[in-house]
Amino acid sequence: MPLPAIASGKREMKMVTTWPKRLPGLGVAAERLAARIGTLSGGRLEIKVYAANELVPALEAFDTVSRGAADMSHGASYYWQGKSKAFNFFTGVPFGMTAAEISAWVRYLGGQALRDEVTAPFGCVSFMAGQTGTQAAGWFRKELTGLADVKGLKFRTPGLGGDVWKKLGVTVVNLPAGEIFQSLQSGAIDATEFVGPSIDIALGFWQVAKNYYWPSFNEPGLALELTVNKKVYDDLPPDLQAIIQYACQADCEETYAELRAHDALLKAHKVLSVMSDRADRAFLDARRLPVKYG
Amino acid sequence: MPLPAIASGKREMKMVTTWPKRLPGLGVAAERLAARIGTLSGGRLEIKVYAANELVPALEAFDTVSRGAADMSHGASYYWQGKSKAFNFFTGVPFGMTAAEISAWVRYLGGQALRDEVTAPFGCVSFMAGQTGTQAAGWFRKELTGLADVKGLKFRTPGLGGDVWKKLGVTVVNLPAGEIFQSLQSGAIDATEFVGPSIDIALGFWQVAKNYYWPSFNEPGLALELTVNKKVYDDLPPDLQAIIQYACQADCEETYAELRAHDALLKAHKVLSVMSDRADRAFLDARRLPVKYG
Repeated sequence: MPLPAIASGKREMKMVTTWPKRLPGLGVAAERLAARIGTLSGGRLEIKVYAANELVPALEAFDTVSRGAADMSHGASYYWQGKSKAFNFFTGVPFGMTAAEISAWVRYLGGQALRDEVTAPFGCVSFMAGQTGTQAAGWFRKELTGLADVKGLKFRTPGLGGDVWKKLGVTVVNLPAGEIFQSLQSGAIDATEFVGPSIDIALGFWQVAKNYYWPSFNEPGLALELTVNKKVYDDLPPDLQAIIQYACQADCEETYAELRAHDALLKAHKVLSVMSDRADRAFLDARRLPVKYG
Repeated sequence: MPLPAIASGKREMKMVTTWPKRLPGLGVAAERLAARIGTLSGGRLEIKVYAANELVPALEAFDTVSRGAADMSHGASYYWQGKSKAFNFFTGVPFGMTAAEISAWVRYLGGQALRDEVTAPFGCVSFMAGQTGTQAAGWFRKELTGLADVKGLKFRTPGLGGDVWKKLGVTVVNLPAGEIFQSLQSGAIDATEFVGPSIDIALGFWQVAKNYYWPSFNEPGLALELTVNKKVYDDLPPDLQAIIQYACQADCEETYAELRAHDALLKAHKVLSVMSDRADRAFLDARRLPVKYG
């Protein structure tokens, strides 16, 4: 008869995420991170991953960890900008830092200390747990021939980038990954951005919105996060704390490598290459305009 | 009385490196990697780091691990190009991959499998353990005003980049980090390249060779390596193998972040900014020429 978990030195933990189950690049990243922590700990930590809506809705992940109903969450910090605008900076901001610059800031130029300050009031600690790189402008039902075309568009785009689009006359909507395709198909939204070629393709947006533009001013770099309930984290011995931190750091390199590898493979993908051709001068003009806003 | 290491579950390991003791960015990276493996393993692995010449000379590090006289080595794979030209590709090659491309190749596009094939005959396994990013062209005693100036120069530059410089009439020398400054000061060499601003400054080359040029065609990206004796590695339980691998991967992100952070800080450094001004058009012309060689 097996010993109960606690007696055998195993600790089971719940990770909620903002991603659909098995979503390439992100849902898979959350599962890989959980598995790595399990392996690195020799099985002492066993993390069960819940996709969006399996335990709680995507955008309730942080609150769930904050109140201790889950041990950790995997997502993007700017989903919590309603609590503090500062959360945006731990994901990415318009005309902001590239992947290398985000890493330099987080590790060596005070980024993590600021992050600790922002997350502490919520009873959480949080770490950079992935990087996806420069984001695409997104998928648009209508071809964009100039700035006039974006006025009144219902566009799913989170973070401070959304504020820029608002200034351009766009109606901005925030939706988690799992709700975008259906909203695009039903006409509830006219356009969406998510990450970049390999992940966007997996979500099927190209089946509905044929005009794909890349890159965007939106986030020159984008970092993912692991948030851990602080009491849970503080209760762990130093080696398990280190395992969580360095597994997150290793996954920063892993996710960036994966997305660059798959984006490169997709360059040969016929559907995508046709759509990329639409990134015409009129749109590039629109991309430059937000610099002058406000 | 303390128990002997073996009875307490501790395993001591020797890491030899190609770096001077406490060399910023590289010697420090080797020590940090060793310390992280110690922390992640809860002290079960205790890695003692030997700088160049403490146990063996820098450029004998790989051979020392291969014959089992040390457990692991930290360095740059292209130092072993005398054994196989293929080693160059695990560090960086002229006009080759950037940091993101090296990561994509190693993790997702067959790079690690090729690496395993190249290192196996030497009884070793090896992992990417750091990235320094785009390399500087280097420090030159004489200002370069055109290609004629490089002919006959005694230039310290390893890897396939050295072969390109040879075609341009340069006498190429390979020296480990710890021997460069003295060779530059004595006049044994006329010029050297090493990494980039923050590490190059720490090695003091600017005190002797005032003309600094960046970037180089030499290595658009440069990866560091950890080589482990294969018998030693195979003898470890899966969690300790994973700890070594993922600590290396986390240090890829760490080293790249550190160098970008410190390079950025050095932009305000007066000595460096004076020297960078010398990167004039004549040198940029020289940089383009190797594309046409052969």
